[in-house]
Amino acid sequence: MKIAILGGTGDIGQGLALRLAADTAHEITVGSRDAEKAETKAEEYTTELESRGLDAAVAGAENEDAAAAARIVVLAVPPYHVGDTVEAVADALVAGDVLVSPATGMKRDEEGFHYHRPGAGSVTKIAANAAPEGVDVVGAFHNLAAARLANLDAELGIDTLVIGDDEDAKTTVIDVAEGIEGLRALDVGGIANAPEIEGLTPLLINVASNNEGLHDLGIEFT
Amino acid sequence: MKIAILGGTGDIGQGLALRLAADTAHEITVGSRDAEKAETKAEEYTTELESRGLDAAVAGAENEDAAAAARIVVLAVPPYHVGDTVEAVADALVAGDVLVSPATGMKRDEEGFHYHRPGAGSVTKIAANAAPEGVDVVGAFHNLAAARLANLDAELGIDTLVIGDDEDAKTTVIDVAEGIEGLRALDVGGIANAPEIEGLTPLLINVASNNEGLHDLGIEFT
Repeated sequence: MKIAILGGTGDIGQGLALRLAADTAHEITVGSRDAEKAETKAEEYTTELESRGLDAAVAGAENEDAAAAARIVVLAVPPYHVGDTVEAVADALVAGDVLVSPATGMKRDEEGFHYHRPGAGSVTKIAANAAPEGVDVVGAFHNLAAARLANLDAELGIDTLVIGDDEDAKTTVIDVAEGIEGLRALDVGGIANAPEIEGLTPLLINVASNNEGLHDLGIEFT
Repeated sequence: MKIAILGGTGDIGQGLALRLAADTAHEITVGSRDAEKAETKAEEYTTELESRGLDAAVAGAENEDAAAAARIVVLAVPPYHVGDTVEAVADALVAGDVLVSPATGMKRDEEGFHYHRPGAGSVTKIAANAAPEGVDVVGAFHNLAAARLANLDAELGIDTLVIGDDEDAKTTVIDVAEGIEGLRALDVGGIANAPEIEGLTPLLINVASNNEGLHDLGIEFT
């Protein structure tokens, strides 16, 4: 399947691109508002994959071109760019495409990081509100440490939580996620259940920052 | 150490009483507004412990009597009773006592359970606001499945997250929690970080209810 990772030049985008390219047969394109930046990063990722003897490549393209070619479009952008990004690529999407939202809103005070819940209810809901007719939105990949994902030597052994209002779209994303070795995808129902998932990300940071030896944390439901 | 579990006749109170009595040398008293109910439940728990060949007993008392005798007082009551319960036992507390808040506010809609954040900021903060001078509040034991805790045959292998504004009180509670076999207690900073921890509880329920074979879930940070 063709998968575009918009914002794929950022930390979490890099991790997803590398893992999906390394572990699955999907065709991965990283998108950026700047086509040249996307291509440069894609070459870096491909070099990294080749250096490990993997017969895998990542392509790069401007966001709209990346989205046009893909069936699954991951919105690996900051939360305040999710709505804009969906609107920017809306004309490139067709019914049956699936948008994936991994972003979460956070704010920080002196105690730590906190979930900054958007007025729409969740970041995933922002994406759903902006999505064109016939394009479903699924929330996934929120609670993954970017550095651990991008380090292909690091074992995962962790869970990602998936929400969506369309069962077929959700199943598609669960299958993609479980293609990543060591990642278990758990269905957590509809988009109304997104806030508690997005709120896990600041918690992971707070746990890591208060406990020596724990960093780049993930969670396992057990 | 003497530990009182107010609301110790309820599900989570039962689990904590049994585990602490089984695995640690602390003296456990379950409290209830109804002394007779507390004594009856305490006898049940003691019978359960004895049936396993454990030389451990749980006592029962009215909440205020239980709190008066204890150094650590666990508020294992519903979130809307946390403030009232602290006020009801306030005269029985002395400086240096530690209140432990495991409760979380939840509401349910057709999609699942959601964190119902109290106006005070968190349930732990409600307890802190109601606590008498010199009595510190620590949040802990939020994300434990009551039935799994109460089943002494069930292995844990999970984490509990601990927050508190007083380091000594927090360390005391972490030590108590880690006395339970298979439970790791992680420091997550101050009470300002409570909402994301309390919000994990509805998420655990949503994960369990959407995935066959997963129930009485806990989490492990890994």
